[in-house]
Amino acid sequence: MTETNPIACLLVIGNEVLSGRTQDANIKFLATRLGEIGIPLREVRVIPDVKDTIVATVNEVRRRFDHVFTTGGIGPTHDDITSECIAAAFGVPWEPHPEAWGRLERHYKPGEFNAARQRMGTMPRGAALIDNAISIAPGFSMENVHVMAGVPRIMQAMFEALAPTLQGGPPIASRTVHANGVMEGRIAEGLADIQQRWPDLDIGSYPYYRMGGGGVALVAKGSDPDAVDAASAAITMLLRAIGSQPVQGEPPV
Amino acid sequence: MTETNPIACLLVIGNEVLSGRTQDANIKFLATRLGEIGIPLREVRVIPDVKDTIVATVNEVRRRFDHVFTTGGIGPTHDDITSECIAAAFGVPWEPHPEAWGRLERHYKPGEFNAARQRMGTMPRGAALIDNAISIAPGFSMENVHVMAGVPRIMQAMFEALAPTLQGGPPIASRTVHANGVMEGRIAEGLADIQQRWPDLDIGSYPYYRMGGGGVALVAKGSDPDAVDAASAAITMLLRAIGSQPVQGEPPV
Repeated sequence: MTETNPIACLLVIGNEVLSGRTQDANIKFLATRLGEIGIPLREVRVIPDVKDTIVATVNEVRRRFDHVFTTGGIGPTHDDITSECIAAAFGVPWEPHPEAWGRLERHYKPGEFNAARQRMGTMPRGAALIDNAISIAPGFSMENVHVMAGVPRIMQAMFEALAPTLQGGPPIASRTVHANGVMEGRIAEGLADIQQRWPDLDIGSYPYYRMGGGGVALVAKGSDPDAVDAASAAITMLLRAIGSQPVQGEPPV
Repeated sequence: MTETNPIACLLVIGNEVLSGRTQDANIKFLATRLGEIGIPLREVRVIPDVKDTIVATVNEVRRRFDHVFTTGGIGPTHDDITSECIAAAFGVPWEPHPEAWGRLERHYKPGEFNAARQRMGTMPRGAALIDNAISIAPGFSMENVHVMAGVPRIMQAMFEALAPTLQGGPPIASRTVHANGVMEGRIAEGLADIQQRWPDLDIGSYPYYRMGGGGVALVAKGSDPDAVDAASAAITMLLRAIGSQPVQGEPPV
């Protein structure tokens, strides 16, 4: 990856992933989409619904990364504390946001916009809303911190509403070659040579195990598509030299 | 959770999760198993195959958590650098481990235990092996840091080999009540009261969306099973009071 790409960190906030109750589905989606728009994901942290932990983590990573995305903890219940923690992290009041409040007030029937739901219209001062096409209650950005829902369908809608406002670097190009029946240990030295020839690329080796035998998937990745093509061709030659018949793309599942 | 439970951190090491290529499957497994043996998982970090990042992260978290588990980066290829980074983090030499080396040497045919594979028999001085019943190459522990493979089947075998040596606190008890058709916002205030009555428990509220309508799953969790039962009964009463017919256990998928 070149240094021209801004980089991102994701905070998955919620006890349910740490307890094993929920299989996270947000990391893969955001990792893929952020790569596509040229803001590669460089770190993920899964942290609990604990105020001190959220505040300290947000303040650490918002200085180290160009963009920070958070998922989870912006609903109406007592364990939804992300929004007030972001206010604390930025040192600003947590107060009704007129536009978010108005959207929610219009959405609920008279009498149903209760104290718990009003929490979803309460935000750090200065928050810029992220639209929620699914269930109304918006996410928001504070500077480079983008606060989204944890429910995957809602998070994805929020991300797509936000994405056009993000300024990415060149998209990350990627080519995969897979070789059935090849063990990593047979090609490791040749692969290390290829990594040295293209130091700006990220050459990855991922063994897989399937019914009927496994193999290895070899990925060349970077922001220069010509270099990615050339490295991928070199990987193909390396595999042919040991008698394998490599195939472009991912192995069949 | 009581303070008698030791706590754990998981480091998922590898570019493939951060690029979206791979859906992580190790967090949920380890979160669940660690809860069962009474060493609740308190943080996860997904970090790239970058030496400085791995060394700094390991040294930060091994002081903050009772146990640190790592997955990924212990194969034979150039991007498998976890083992040498652990040596650097502990300030010890990275050198052939006689027992690991011997197991690998016996496993491969003459001439096939090449330089790349010898890396899998090279470990930080003082490493205690973690058996690998699937593919021979062992993981290892250095003090409270447990280094495992990234391939889920191998990681799971390593964890089960290691688990009997880990001293957990009381297992974490959990009860789930789900209520179809109930919106979080209707019960949020009652739920906050229940959390206040049992401050040592972790009361979670997780909305779900399904074909034919969603609902909410309410989870009481903690190391005192009687308190978990009592809080779960209070949640059931709260739901009945608003006319819902709550059901014990997870909603049908």
